[in-house]
Amino acid sequence: MNLSNDLIIKAAKGQKVERTPVWLMRQAGRILPEYRKIRNSLSGFKELVETPHLAAEVTIQPVDILDVDAAIIFSDILVVPDAMGLSYEMIEKKGPLFRNTIQKEKDLNSIKIPDIEDNLSYVFDAIKITKKELNGRVPLIGFAGAPWTIFSYMTEGQGSKTFSKAKKLLYQNPKLSHDLLNKITETTILYLKCQIKSGVDMVQIFDSWAGILNKEQYLEFGMKYVKRICNAIDEVPITVFSKGAYFALSDMANLNCNTIGLDWNMDIENAKNIFGNTKTLQGNLDPCALYSDFKTIEDKTNLMLNKFGNSRHIANLGHGLYPDINPDNVKCFINAVKAYHKNN
Amino acid sequence: MNLSNDLIIKAAKGQKVERTPVWLMRQAGRILPEYRKIRNSLSGFKELVETPHLAAEVTIQPVDILDVDAAIIFSDILVVPDAMGLSYEMIEKKGPLFRNTIQKEKDLNSIKIPDIEDNLSYVFDAIKITKKELNGRVPLIGFAGAPWTIFSYMTEGQGSKTFSKAKKLLYQNPKLSHDLLNKITETTILYLKCQIKSGVDMVQIFDSWAGILNKEQYLEFGMKYVKRICNAIDEVPITVFSKGAYFALSDMANLNCNTIGLDWNMDIENAKNIFGNTKTLQGNLDPCALYSDFKTIEDKTNLMLNKFGNSRHIANLGHGLYPDINPDNVKCFINAVKAYHKNN
Repeated sequence: MNLSNDLIIKAAKGQKVERTPVWLMRQAGRILPEYRKIRNSLSGFKELVETPHLAAEVTIQPVDILDVDAAIIFSDILVVPDAMGLSYEMIEKKGPLFRNTIQKEKDLNSIKIPDIEDNLSYVFDAIKITKKELNGRVPLIGFAGAPWTIFSYMTEGQGSKTFSKAKKLLYQNPKLSHDLLNKITETTILYLKCQIKSGVDMVQIFDSWAGILNKEQYLEFGMKYVKRICNAIDEVPITVFSKGAYFALSDMANLNCNTIGLDWNMDIENAKNIFGNTKTLQGNLDPCALYSDFKTIEDKTNLMLNKFGNSRHIANLGHGLYPDINPDNVKCFINAVKAYHKNN
Repeated sequence: MNLSNDLIIKAAKGQKVERTPVWLMRQAGRILPEYRKIRNSLSGFKELVETPHLAAEVTIQPVDILDVDAAIIFSDILVVPDAMGLSYEMIEKKGPLFRNTIQKEKDLNSIKIPDIEDNLSYVFDAIKITKKELNGRVPLIGFAGAPWTIFSYMTEGQGSKTFSKAKKLLYQNPKLSHDLLNKITETTILYLKCQIKSGVDMVQIFDSWAGILNKEQYLEFGMKYVKRICNAIDEVPITVFSKGAYFALSDMANLNCNTIGLDWNMDIENAKNIFGNTKTLQGNLDPCALYSDFKTIEDKTNLMLNKFGNSRHIANLGHGLYPDINPDNVKCFINAVKAYHKNN
């Protein structure tokens, strides 16, 4: 199917675009009253993730309401460990919780590289419905967690400020750590390939906890596996977002991916120097800037766009939208990106 | 009183030392069974902080047990907002909680620059007892939170992954933010001066949440006030530890302080290039490295010391000790630092 708006695909490939495309991490979700209405009619977050027609509906909401240049399939990175046999619950206002975690060799035996098509059919069904309903209006982004980030939940069991249990395992049992990371990586490659087969137009790998490792450990336990995923996927453009891993940006220049996500702390000038025009950069307004008044949001968006200048760029925040951000302020950001080329 | 071991003072001042001095952030506390015994006999964490002879006792424990080159007074950065009229509770296993927070101008009127000597006498009494009992064995370090970090708790009300409420205030009400930061800064200067008068030999400023701001905001709302504190204190050496603020390291070269703390993500070579020999660097082993076996701890400690080389250095972790780290592993780290010059 031809896309009537393929700005983001062109930008990812480094092709000339008439204006900078824009979407927002977590654009589908809690900021929209339309989302909360659906969510509140269900037993919980996982029911929404696992109900394809509803997941498709909330995926498309920001395209209709916010007029972004891409949809991203509504799901969760933790469906992967779930499919591998380590199930999680989503605790309201607290986040994910795994009652069992991977600590020893025997725990590793209890998880498997699953039959992805079967185990995660609800994701692929949601993608197929979304693609049909989007009808080519904008591209659909698929995604997965990076192996290190998935590993950190599977070993820590929940969110953490330090992820010291996950890191402890890297120090105490590097072999077990690599074995687990290998299993996650194999599963993730199969998962992304099935997403692509189901219709997604590009994919993003989220390494949300990259920044709690030091450079040496991130290269060994993080980037190594991201690299393997990038090398395995050549069907669609890939974005890698390693939050906090400023220390590994120059190593990421070697990744076989199209786009590098920048968090709001990362220096745009520095990233341009590192990547030149070999990669597209995505980001990176501070999500909290969207708490400002319209004038300030416009100014900060323009300032960001000025800094990216003529380099390959997809506009986004430097982190996901926070739940209490007003949708009107999100629209202000999107409109500012779209208006930019007219004024400058 | 003369100090029989003044390695850390000399190192902070850039004087020649026979070996690298070593201490650990959070060395007094939960890792030591001797600490837990005292702590468990009390109603809560705050009782310990507010009982001078017990605070002194746990301050000295790591000097006796671990043989570190400095003691750091056992206290909490949140005694400052407490003294300003915004009280907190320490919730077991959760962390600090402020039932009231600063959100509007009228909230600011309810807090004051307190009579420090009176309101925080328990800290100064603990310092005096500690100094007497240490009897010159090692220097005593005093400390305070940096204004931005204190601000983040006073506005957010508790720990947070994003501190989006605190950051929201910076965007929505910069004037109120600066007014609050000014009050905190004035209080902190008085507080540190009283600590020095009571006997501490050096002071450290902890900016634990520096890394959640972008560079522009950290310079405006963070560093500006740290700078003012550094300029107001000239009695003893000052250490500034801005966790996560890698993007501001080059700006910190202008601070009127002796030592810069590095977290475990920060690149030692880069820091040496920025600071030359104008500052002493403190840090920066990953605290999780202390979960390793002795051989690995020794190797990683030696590797770190090799990287610092002949530059001005105080050995420490890149973050506080985590509660479940074995004291024997901490001793292994300390002994590795002390043995280093003999072997290399």
